[in-house]
Amino acid sequence: MADHGRRVLLLSNSTQAGHDYLEHAAAPIQEHFPAGGRIAFVPYALHDWDRYTAKAAAGLGALGYKVTGVHTGDPATVVAEADGVFVGGGNTFRLATGVHRTGLADVLRERVADGLPYMGASAGTVLAGPSIRTTNDMPIVQPPTFTALGLIGFHINPHFLSGAVVPDFMGETREQRLAEYLEENETPVVGLPEGSWITAHGTTVTAGGAHDAVLFARGAEPGPLPVGSDLSALETAPHVGVAGDAGC
Amino acid sequence: MADHGRRVLLLSNSTQAGHDYLEHAAAPIQEHFPAGGRIAFVPYALHDWDRYTAKAAAGLGALGYKVTGVHTGDPATVVAEADGVFVGGGNTFRLATGVHRTGLADVLRERVADGLPYMGASAGTVLAGPSIRTTNDMPIVQPPTFTALGLIGFHINPHFLSGAVVPDFMGETREQRLAEYLEENETPVVGLPEGSWITAHGTTVTAGGAHDAVLFARGAEPGPLPVGSDLSALETAPHVGVAGDAGC
Repeated sequence: MADHGRRVLLLSNSTQAGHDYLEHAAAPIQEHFPAGGRIAFVPYALHDWDRYTAKAAAGLGALGYKVTGVHTGDPATVVAEADGVFVGGGNTFRLATGVHRTGLADVLRERVADGLPYMGASAGTVLAGPSIRTTNDMPIVQPPTFTALGLIGFHINPHFLSGAVVPDFMGETREQRLAEYLEENETPVVGLPEGSWITAHGTTVTAGGAHDAVLFARGAEPGPLPVGSDLSALETAPHVGVAGDAGC
Repeated sequence: MADHGRRVLLLSNSTQAGHDYLEHAAAPIQEHFPAGGRIAFVPYALHDWDRYTAKAAAGLGALGYKVTGVHTGDPATVVAEADGVFVGGGNTFRLATGVHRTGLADVLRERVADGLPYMGASAGTVLAGPSIRTTNDMPIVQPPTFTALGLIGFHINPHFLSGAVVPDFMGETREQRLAEYLEENETPVVGLPEGSWITAHGTTVTAGGAHDAVLFARGAEPGPLPVGSDLSALETAPHVGVAGDAGC
Protein backbone atom coordinates (compact mmCIF):
# COMPACT_ATOMS: atom_id res chain seq x y z
CA MET A 1 0.00 0.00 0.00
CA ALA A 2 1.29 3.45 -0.89
CA ASP A 3 0.91 4.93 2.58
CA HIS A 4 2.68 8.17 1.96
CA GLY A 5 -0.24 9.92 0.36
CA ARG A 6 -2.82 8.46 2.71
CA ARG A 7 -5.29 10.88 4.32
CA VAL A 8 -7.77 9.06 6.50
CA LEU A 9 -10.13 10.37 9.22
CA LEU A 10 -11.99 7.73 11.20
CA LEU A 11 -14.77 8.84 13.55
CA SER A 12 -16.16 6.55 16.21
CA ASN A 13 -19.64 7.99 15.62
CA SER A 14 -21.38 10.40 13.27
CA THR A 15 -23.89 11.78 15.78
CA GLN A 16 -22.93 12.88 19.26
CA ALA A 17 -25.64 13.28 21.88
CA GLY A 18 -26.77 16.92 21.94
CA HIS A 19 -25.27 17.73 18.54
CA ASP A 20 -26.43 17.66 14.92
CA TYR A 21 -25.11 15.02 12.56
CA LEU A 22 -21.28 15.34 12.25
CA GLU A 23 -21.33 18.63 14.17
CA HIS A 24 -19.04 17.34 16.94
CA ALA A 25 -16.36 16.61 14.36
CA ALA A 26 -16.65 19.82 12.31
CA ALA A 27 -13.06 20.89 13.04
CA PRO A 28 -11.29 17.68 11.94
CA ILE A 29 -13.62 17.36 8.93
CA GLN A 30 -12.76 20.86 7.76
CA GLU A 31 -9.08 20.10 8.17
CA HIS A 32 -9.57 16.85 6.28
CA PHE A 33 -11.54 17.75 3.16
CA PRO A 34 -10.60 20.69 0.92
CA ALA A 35 -12.89 23.70 1.47
CA GLY A 36 -15.97 23.60 -0.75
CA GLY A 37 -15.03 20.19 -2.11
CA ARG A 38 -17.21 17.49 -3.68
CA ILE A 39 -17.68 14.49 -1.39
CA ALA A 40 -18.67 11.05 -2.69
CA PHE A 41 -20.94 9.49 -0.06
CA VAL A 42 -21.23 5.73 0.42
CA PRO A 43 -24.70 5.04 1.93
CA TYR A 44 -24.67 1.23 1.80
CA ALA A 45 -24.72 0.72 5.58
CA LEU A 46 -28.35 1.86 5.80
CA HIS A 47 -31.37 0.58 3.92
CA ASP A 48 -32.63 3.81 2.35
CA TRP A 49 -29.71 5.18 0.33
CA ASP A 50 -31.45 8.32 -0.94
CA ARG A 51 -32.62 9.35 2.50
CA TYR A 52 -29.22 8.66 4.01
CA THR A 53 -27.48 10.66 1.29
CA ALA A 54 -29.82 13.58 1.98
CA LYS A 55 -28.81 13.43 5.64
CA ALA A 56 -25.11 13.38 4.76
CA ALA A 57 -25.65 16.24 2.30
CA ALA A 58 -27.28 18.31 5.02
CA GLY A 59 -24.55 17.59 7.58
CA LEU A 60 -21.62 18.13 5.21
CA GLY A 61 -23.48 20.91 3.42
CA ALA A 62 -23.46 22.89 6.67
CA LEU A 63 -19.67 22.65 6.53
CA GLY A 64 -19.53 23.87 2.92
CA TYR A 65 -19.29 20.58 1.01
CA LYS A 66 -21.27 19.20 -1.93
CA VAL A 67 -22.34 15.57 -1.52
CA THR A 68 -23.15 12.96 -4.18
CA GLY A 69 -24.28 9.44 -3.32
CA VAL A 70 -22.18 6.80 -5.05
CA HIS A 71 -25.43 4.95 -5.86
CA THR A 72 -26.68 7.82 -8.04
CA GLY A 73 -24.32 6.86 -10.87
CA ASP A 74 -21.45 4.55 -11.54
CA PRO A 75 -19.79 4.34 -8.09
CA ALA A 76 -16.24 4.44 -9.46
CA THR A 77 -17.07 7.50 -11.55
CA VAL A 78 -18.67 9.33 -8.64
CA VAL A 79 -15.54 8.65 -6.58
CA ALA A 80 -13.26 9.66 -9.47
CA GLU A 81 -14.97 13.05 -9.70
CA ALA A 82 -14.84 13.72 -5.95
CA ASP A 83 -12.38 15.56 -3.72
CA GLY A 84 -13.03 13.17 -0.86
CA VAL A 85 -15.10 10.16 0.14
CA PHE A 86 -17.27 9.66 3.21
CA VAL A 87 -18.42 6.18 4.21
CA GLY A 88 -21.34 6.52 6.61
CA GLY A 89 -22.24 4.33 9.58
CA GLY A 90 -25.05 1.84 9.99
CA ASN A 91 -24.71 -1.91 9.64
CA THR A 92 -21.16 -3.02 8.83
CA PHE A 93 -22.24 -6.29 7.20
CA ARG A 94 -24.58 -4.45 4.84
CA LEU A 95 -21.84 -1.91 4.10
CA ALA A 96 -19.23 -4.59 3.39
CA THR A 97 -21.66 -6.41 1.12
CA GLY A 98 -22.27 -3.20 -0.80
CA VAL A 99 -18.67 -2.20 -1.34
CA HIS A 100 -17.61 -5.69 -2.39
CA ARG A 101 -20.55 -6.36 -4.72
CA THR A 102 -20.13 -3.03 -6.55
CA GLY A 103 -16.34 -3.29 -6.83
CA LEU A 104 -16.07 -0.09 -4.81
CA ALA A 105 -13.75 -1.78 -2.30
CA ASP A 106 -10.93 -1.97 -4.83
CA VAL A 107 -11.70 1.52 -6.15
CA LEU A 108 -11.47 2.99 -2.65
CA ARG A 109 -8.20 1.20 -1.85
CA GLU A 110 -6.63 2.53 -5.03
CA ARG A 111 -7.93 6.09 -4.73
CA VAL A 112 -7.02 6.42 -1.04
CA ALA A 113 -3.50 5.15 -1.79
CA ASP A 114 -3.35 7.93 -4.41
CA GLY A 115 -4.25 10.55 -1.79
CA LEU A 116 -8.05 10.88 -1.94
CA PRO A 117 -9.16 11.87 1.57
CA TYR A 118 -11.28 9.10 3.17
CA MET A 119 -13.60 9.72 6.09
CA GLY A 120 -15.45 6.96 7.90
CA ALA A 121 -17.90 6.97 10.78
CA SER A 122 -18.79 3.90 12.83
CA ALA A 123 -19.25 1.12 10.21
CA GLY A 124 -17.27 3.27 7.76
CA THR A 125 -14.47 3.36 10.32
CA VAL A 126 -14.52 -0.41 10.83
CA LEU A 127 -14.36 -0.79 7.05
CA ALA A 128 -11.06 1.11 6.96
CA GLY A 129 -9.38 -1.60 9.04
CA PRO A 130 -7.98 -4.93 7.88
CA SER A 131 -11.29 -6.74 8.42
CA ILE A 132 -14.75 -6.23 9.86
CA ARG A 133 -14.01 -8.59 12.75
CA THR A 134 -14.31 -5.86 15.41
CA THR A 135 -17.69 -4.45 14.45
CA ASN A 136 -20.44 -4.26 17.08
CA ASP A 137 -23.15 -4.86 14.50
CA MET A 138 -25.57 -7.71 13.98
CA PRO A 139 -24.69 -9.89 10.95
CA ILE A 140 -28.00 -9.25 9.15
CA VAL A 141 -26.55 -10.13 5.74
CA GLN A 142 -23.59 -12.28 4.75
CA PRO A 143 -20.89 -10.32 2.90
CA PRO A 144 -18.70 -12.24 0.45
CA THR A 145 -15.74 -11.74 2.79
CA PHE A 146 -14.90 -10.19 6.17
CA THR A 147 -11.78 -8.63 4.61
CA ALA A 148 -12.12 -4.85 4.62
CA LEU A 149 -10.25 -1.99 2.95
CA GLY A 150 -7.03 -2.20 4.96
CA LEU A 151 -6.46 1.56 4.83
CA ILE A 152 -4.93 1.31 8.30
CA GLY A 153 -2.94 -1.57 9.73
CA PHE A 154 -4.90 -2.25 12.93
CA HIS A 155 -8.52 -2.82 13.87
CA ILE A 156 -10.86 -0.24 15.38
CA ASN A 157 -13.83 -0.95 17.63
CA PRO A 158 -16.10 2.11 17.37
CA HIS A 159 -18.65 3.19 20.00
CA PHE A 160 -16.22 1.74 22.52
CA LEU A 161 -17.80 1.54 25.96
CA SER A 162 -16.10 -0.06 28.92
CA GLY A 163 -17.63 -2.47 31.39
CA ALA A 164 -20.84 -4.31 32.03
CA VAL A 165 -23.85 -2.29 31.00
CA VAL A 166 -26.69 -3.83 33.01
CA PRO A 167 -26.39 -5.37 36.50
CA ASP A 168 -26.81 -9.16 36.45
CA PHE A 169 -26.97 -9.23 32.65
CA MET A 170 -24.92 -12.16 31.37
CA GLY A 171 -24.22 -10.96 27.83
CA GLU A 172 -20.56 -10.24 27.20
CA THR A 173 -19.02 -6.85 27.92
CA ARG A 174 -17.11 -5.12 25.15
CA GLU A 175 -13.83 -6.10 26.85
CA GLN A 176 -14.88 -9.76 26.86
CA ARG A 177 -15.77 -9.59 23.18
CA LEU A 178 -12.41 -8.06 22.30
CA ALA A 179 -10.59 -10.60 24.47
CA GLU A 180 -12.31 -13.31 22.39
CA TYR A 181 -11.20 -11.49 19.24
CA LEU A 182 -7.60 -11.63 20.52
CA GLU A 183 -7.90 -15.38 21.13
CA GLU A 184 -8.37 -15.75 17.38
CA ASN A 185 -6.47 -12.79 15.88
CA GLU A 186 -3.09 -11.09 16.28
CA THR A 187 -3.82 -7.62 14.88
CA PRO A 188 -4.32 -5.16 17.76
CA VAL A 189 -7.58 -3.26 18.26
CA VAL A 190 -8.12 0.36 19.23
CA GLY A 191 -11.32 0.80 21.25
CA LEU A 192 -12.52 4.23 20.12
CA PRO A 193 -15.06 5.96 22.40
CA GLU A 194 -17.84 8.09 20.99
CA GLY A 195 -16.65 11.63 20.37
CA SER A 196 -13.17 10.46 19.39
CA TRP A 197 -11.39 9.78 16.10
CA ILE A 198 -8.17 8.62 14.49
CA THR A 199 -6.28 10.39 11.73
CA ALA A 200 -3.76 8.79 9.38
CA HIS A 201 -1.69 11.22 7.33
CA GLY A 202 0.93 9.34 5.39
CA THR A 203 2.74 7.21 7.97
CA THR A 204 1.57 9.33 10.91
CA VAL A 205 -1.39 7.92 12.81
CA THR A 206 -2.84 9.87 15.73
CA ALA A 207 -5.64 9.51 18.30
CA GLY A 208 -7.91 12.55 18.47
CA GLY A 209 -11.18 13.82 19.84
CA ALA A 210 -12.82 14.07 23.22
CA HIS A 211 -11.85 10.87 25.03
CA ASP A 212 -8.84 8.58 25.36
CA ALA A 213 -8.92 5.41 23.31
CA VAL A 214 -8.07 1.94 24.68
CA LEU A 215 -5.55 -0.49 23.20
CA PHE A 216 -6.35 -4.20 23.10
CA ALA A 217 -3.34 -6.32 22.18
CA ARG A 218 -2.60 -9.99 22.60
CA GLY A 219 -0.78 -10.88 25.81
CA ALA A 220 -1.32 -7.49 27.48
CA GLU A 221 -3.95 -5.91 29.67
CA PRO A 222 -6.03 -3.25 27.91
CA GLY A 223 -4.29 0.11 28.24
CA PRO A 224 -5.11 3.77 27.59
CA LEU A 225 -4.19 5.58 24.39
CA PRO A 226 -4.48 9.24 25.40
CA VAL A 227 -5.77 11.83 22.95
CA GLY A 228 -2.77 12.87 20.86
CA SER A 229 -1.07 9.47 21.04
CA ASP A 230 1.02 8.34 18.09
CA LEU A 231 -0.57 5.07 16.95
CA SER A 232 1.75 4.36 14.04
CA ALA A 233 3.58 1.58 15.92
CA LEU A 234 0.34 -0.40 15.93
CA GLU A 235 0.60 -0.71 12.16
CA THR A 236 3.05 -3.58 12.33
CA ALA A 237 0.38 -6.02 11.14
CA PRO A 238 -0.34 -6.78 7.50
CA HIS A 239 -2.35 -3.91 6.06
CA VAL A 240 -4.78 -5.83 3.95
CA GLY A 241 -6.66 -8.93 4.87
CA VAL A 242 -6.67 -11.40 7.70
CA ALA A 243 -5.76 -15.07 7.42
CA GLY A 244 -8.84 -17.14 6.77
CA ASP A 245 -11.02 -14.32 5.49
CA ALA A 246 -10.48 -15.00 1.83
CA GLY A 247 -13.86 -16.69 1.65
CA CYS A 248 -13.85 -18.81 -1.46
CA MET B 1 -37.05 -31.85 7.63
CA ALA B 2 -38.58 -34.68 9.63
CA ASP B 3 -40.05 -32.50 12.32
CA HIS B 4 -42.12 -35.11 13.98
CA GLY B 5 -39.34 -36.62 16.02
CA ARG B 6 -37.74 -33.30 16.83
CA ARG B 7 -36.88 -32.60 20.48
CA VAL B 8 -35.18 -29.24 20.87
CA LEU B 9 -34.59 -27.10 23.99
CA LEU B 10 -33.16 -23.64 23.38
CA LEU B 11 -32.00 -21.59 26.35
CA SER B 12 -31.33 -17.87 26.08
CA ASN B 13 -28.42 -18.22 28.50
CA SER B 14 -26.50 -20.95 30.31
CA THR B 15 -25.73 -18.98 33.46
CA GLN B 16 -28.30 -16.94 35.30
CA ALA B 17 -27.14 -14.32 37.80
CA GLY B 18 -27.08 -15.85 41.29
CA HIS B 19 -27.17 -19.43 39.99
CA ASP B 20 -24.62 -22.07 39.04
CA TYR B 21 -24.11 -22.99 35.40
CA LEU B 22 -27.39 -24.36 33.94
CA GLU B 23 -29.00 -24.46 37.40
CA HIS B 24 -31.83 -22.09 36.45
CA ALA B 25 -32.89 -24.52 33.72
CA ALA B 26 -32.58 -27.78 35.68
CA ALA B 27 -36.27 -28.62 35.34
CA PRO B 28 -36.56 -28.33 31.53
CA ILE B 29 -33.19 -30.04 31.08
CA GLN B 30 -34.31 -33.02 33.15
CA GLU B 31 -37.51 -33.21 31.13
CA HIS B 32 -35.47 -32.98 27.94
CA PHE B 33 -32.65 -35.51 28.30
CA PRO B 34 -33.26 -39.10 29.48
CA ALA B 35 -32.25 -39.61 33.11
CA GLY B 36 -28.61 -40.62 33.48
CA GLY B 37 -28.01 -40.21 29.76
CA ARG B 38 -24.79 -39.58 27.86
CA ILE B 39 -24.58 -36.04 26.47
CA ALA B 40 -22.31 -35.08 23.57
CA PHE B 41 -21.06 -31.55 24.24
CA VAL B 42 -20.07 -29.15 21.47
CA PRO B 43 -17.51 -26.69 22.95
CA TYR B 44 -16.52 -24.86 19.76
CA ALA B 45 -17.95 -21.47 20.82
CA LEU B 46 -15.16 -20.97 23.36
CA HIS B 47 -11.41 -21.10 22.85
CA ASP B 48 -10.47 -23.74 25.44
CA TRP B 49 -12.50 -26.83 24.56
CA ASP B 50 -11.23 -29.04 27.38
CA ARG B 51 -11.91 -26.48 30.04
CA TYR B 52 -15.34 -25.71 28.63
CA THR B 53 -16.22 -29.41 28.48
CA ALA B 54 -15.21 -29.76 32.13
CA LYS B 55 -17.59 -26.93 32.99
CA ALA B 56 -20.43 -28.55 31.06
CA ALA B 57 -19.62 -31.90 32.68
CA ALA B 58 -19.87 -30.33 36.12
CA GLY B 59 -23.15 -28.54 35.35
CA LEU B 60 -24.83 -31.48 33.66
CA GLY B 61 -23.16 -33.94 36.04
CA ALA B 62 -25.01 -32.28 38.90
CA LEU B 63 -28.20 -33.23 37.07
CA GLY B 64 -27.11 -36.84 36.61
CA TYR B 65 -25.69 -36.78 33.08
CA LYS B 66 -22.39 -37.99 31.66
CA VAL B 67 -20.73 -35.52 29.28
CA THR B 68 -18.26 -36.17 26.45
CA GLY B 69 -16.76 -33.37 24.37
CA VAL B 70 -17.19 -33.97 20.64
CA HIS B 71 -13.55 -32.87 20.20
CA THR B 72 -12.25 -35.81 22.25
CA GLY B 73 -12.90 -38.25 19.39
CA ASP B 74 -14.53 -38.32 15.99
CA PRO B 75 -17.37 -35.80 16.46
CA ALA B 76 -19.91 -37.86 14.51
CA THR B 77 -19.07 -40.94 16.56
CA VAL B 78 -19.35 -39.09 19.87
CA VAL B 79 -22.78 -37.84 18.78
CA ALA B 80 -23.80 -41.29 17.53
CA GLU B 81 -23.07 -42.81 20.96
CA ALA B 82 -24.94 -40.09 22.88
CA ASP B 83 -28.48 -39.82 24.22
CA GLY B 84 -28.53 -36.09 23.64
CA VAL B 85 -26.39 -33.19 22.41
CA PHE B 86 -25.67 -29.87 24.11
CA VAL B 87 -24.21 -26.98 22.12
CA GLY B 88 -22.78 -24.46 24.55
CA GLY B 89 -22.69 -20.67 24.26
CA GLY B 90 -19.79 -18.36 23.57
CA ASN B 91 -19.01 -16.81 20.22
CA THR B 92 -21.48 -17.78 17.49
CA PHE B 93 -19.03 -17.18 14.63
CA ARG B 94 -16.45 -19.46 16.23
CA LEU B 95 -19.16 -22.07 16.88
CA ALA B 96 -20.47 -21.93 13.30
CA THR B 97 -16.94 -22.25 11.96
CA GLY B 98 -16.39 -25.33 14.12
CA VAL B 99 -19.56 -27.19 13.22
CA HIS B 100 -19.17 -26.52 9.48
CA ARG B 101 -15.45 -27.36 9.29
CA THR B 102 -15.87 -30.66 11.13
CA GLY B 103 -18.98 -31.70 9.21
CA LEU B 104 -20.88 -31.76 12.51
CA ALA B 105 -23.54 -29.41 11.11
CA ASP B 106 -24.87 -32.11 8.78
CA VAL B 107 -24.54 -34.79 11.47
CA LEU B 108 -26.58 -32.73 13.92
CA ARG B 109 -29.31 -31.96 11.38
CA GLU B 110 -29.68 -35.65 10.61
CA ARG B 111 -29.56 -36.90 14.17
CA VAL B 112 -32.00 -34.28 15.48
CA ALA B 113 -34.41 -35.12 12.67
CA ASP B 114 -34.13 -38.72 13.87
CA GLY B 115 -35.10 -37.70 17.41
CA LEU B 116 -31.82 -37.04 19.23
CA PRO B 117 -32.58 -34.39 21.86
CA TYR B 118 -30.73 -31.12 21.11
CA MET B 119 -30.10 -28.46 23.71
CA GLY B 120 -28.55 -25.11 22.92
CA ALA B 121 -27.64 -22.15 25.07
CA SER B 122 -26.97 -18.64 23.71
CA ALA B 123 -24.76 -19.25 20.62
CA GLY B 124 -25.99 -22.86 20.60
CA THR B 125 -29.53 -21.51 20.48
CA VAL B 126 -28.77 -19.14 17.60
CA LEU B 127 -27.21 -22.09 15.76
CA ALA B 128 -30.52 -23.98 15.89
CA GLY B 129 -32.20 -21.29 13.77
CA PRO B 130 -32.08 -20.89 9.99
CA SER B 131 -28.97 -18.68 10.11
CA ILE B 132 -26.70 -16.89 12.56
CA ARG B 133 -27.97 -13.49 11.38
CA THR B 134 -29.51 -12.64 14.79
CA THR B 135 -26.51 -13.29 17.01
CA ASN B 136 -25.27 -10.56 19.34
CA ASP B 137 -21.68 -11.68 18.99
CA MET B 138 -18.64 -10.04 17.48
CA PRO B 139 -17.58 -11.63 14.16
CA ILE B 140 -14.11 -12.60 15.39
CA VAL B 141 -13.71 -15.32 12.74
CA GLN B 142 -15.34 -15.77 9.35
CA PRO B 143 -17.38 -18.97 9.10
CA PRO B 144 -17.77 -20.55 5.66
CA THR B 145 -21.47 -19.63 5.73
CA PHE B 146 -24.02 -17.86 7.93
CA THR B 147 -26.47 -20.72 7.31
CA ALA B 148 -27.11 -22.57 10.57
CA LEU B 149 -28.75 -25.87 11.47
CA GLY B 150 -32.36 -24.92 10.72
CA LEU B 151 -33.73 -27.09 13.52
CA ILE B 152 -36.46 -24.50 13.98
CA GLY B 153 -38.11 -22.35 11.34
CA PHE B 154 -37.56 -18.89 12.84
CA HIS B 155 -34.67 -16.92 14.25
CA ILE B 156 -33.91 -16.40 17.94
CA ASN B 157 -32.11 -13.45 19.47
CA PRO B 158 -30.78 -14.67 22.84
CA HIS B 159 -29.93 -12.44 25.82
CA PHE B 160 -32.74 -10.21 24.56
CA LEU B 161 -32.77 -6.89 26.37
CA SER B 162 -35.09 -4.07 25.50
CA GLY B 163 -34.20 -0.43 25.11
CA ALA B 164 -31.20 1.82 25.19
CA VAL B 165 -28.69 0.73 27.78
CA VAL B 166 -26.65 3.87 28.47
CA PRO B 167 -27.96 7.45 28.42
CA ASP B 168 -26.63 9.45 25.47
CA PHE B 169 -24.89 6.40 24.01
CA MET B 170 -25.38 6.34 20.25
CA GLY B 171 -24.81 2.63 19.58
CA GLU B 172 -27.92 0.84 18.36
CA THR B 173 -30.43 -0.69 20.77
CA ARG B 174 -31.37 -4.33 20.32
CA GLU B 175 -34.68 -3.25 18.80
CA GLN B 176 -32.87 -1.09 16.23
CA ARG B 177 -30.58 -3.97 15.33
CA LEU B 178 -33.52 -6.33 14.83
CA ALA B 179 -35.39 -3.70 12.81
CA GLU B 180 -32.34 -3.59 10.51
CA TYR B 181 -32.43 -7.39 10.33
CA LEU B 182 -36.06 -7.17 9.18
CA GLU B 183 -35.13 -4.66 6.48
CA GLU B 184 -33.05 -7.43 4.91
CA ASN B 185 -34.81 -10.66 5.96
CA GLU B 186 -38.34 -12.06 6.09
CA THR B 187 -37.99 -14.80 8.72
CA PRO B 188 -39.38 -13.57 12.07
CA VAL B 189 -37.23 -13.31 15.19
CA VAL B 190 -38.07 -14.24 18.76
CA GLY B 191 -36.23 -12.01 21.24
CA LEU B 192 -35.57 -14.39 24.14
CA PRO B 193 -34.75 -12.77 27.50
CA GLU B 194 -32.27 -14.31 29.89
CA GLY B 195 -33.94 -16.95 32.06
CA SER B 196 -36.26 -18.01 29.24
CA TRP B 197 -36.25 -20.82 26.67
CA ILE B 198 -38.09 -22.35 23.74
CA THR B 199 -39.02 -26.01 23.35
CA ALA B 200 -39.84 -27.74 20.06
CA HIS B 201 -41.37 -31.19 20.39
CA GLY B 202 -42.36 -32.47 16.99
CA THR B 203 -44.51 -29.72 15.49
CA THR B 204 -45.25 -28.10 18.87
CA VAL B 205 -43.12 -25.07 19.66
CA THR B 206 -43.58 -23.30 23.00
CA ALA B 207 -42.14 -20.32 24.87
CA GLY B 208 -40.98 -21.16 28.40
CA GLY B 209 -39.01 -19.86 31.33
CA ALA B 210 -39.09 -16.82 33.54
CA HIS B 211 -39.90 -13.93 31.20
CA ASP B 212 -42.08 -13.24 28.17
CA ALA B 213 -40.35 -13.27 24.81
CA VAL B 214 -40.80 -10.58 22.13
CA LEU B 215 -41.77 -11.17 18.51
CA PHE B 216 -40.10 -9.15 15.75
CA ALA B 217 -41.81 -9.58 12.39
CA ARG B 218 -41.69 -7.54 9.23
CA GLY B 219 -44.42 -4.91 8.96
CA ALA B 220 -45.51 -5.13 12.61
CA GLU B 221 -44.54 -3.49 15.86
CA PRO B 222 -42.63 -5.78 18.25
CA GLY B 223 -45.15 -7.66 20.41
CA PRO B 224 -45.08 -9.86 23.52
CA LEU B 225 -44.98 -13.65 23.38
CA PRO B 226 -46.06 -14.62 26.91
CA VAL B 227 -44.56 -17.65 28.63
CA GLY B 228 -46.56 -20.65 27.42
CA SER B 229 -47.26 -19.18 23.97
CA ASP B 230 -47.56 -21.54 21.02
CA LEU B 231 -44.87 -20.42 18.57
CA SER B 232 -45.49 -23.02 15.88
CA ALA B 233 -47.19 -20.53 13.55
CA LEU B 234 -43.86 -18.68 13.30
CA GLU B 235 -42.42 -21.69 11.50
CA THR B 236 -43.88 -20.71 8.16
CA ALA B 237 -40.46 -19.78 6.83
CA PRO B 238 -38.10 -22.21 5.10
CA HIS B 239 -36.44 -24.32 7.78
CA VAL B 240 -32.95 -24.47 6.39
CA GLY B 241 -30.90 -21.65 4.99
CA VAL B 242 -31.47 -18.08 4.01
CA ALA B 243 -31.19 -16.70 0.50
CA GLY B 244 -27.72 -15.39 -0.15
CA ASP B 245 -26.04 -17.31 2.65
CA ALA B 246 -24.86 -20.17 0.49
CA GLY B 247 -21.37 -18.66 0.43
CA CYS B 248 -19.39 -20.49 -2.24
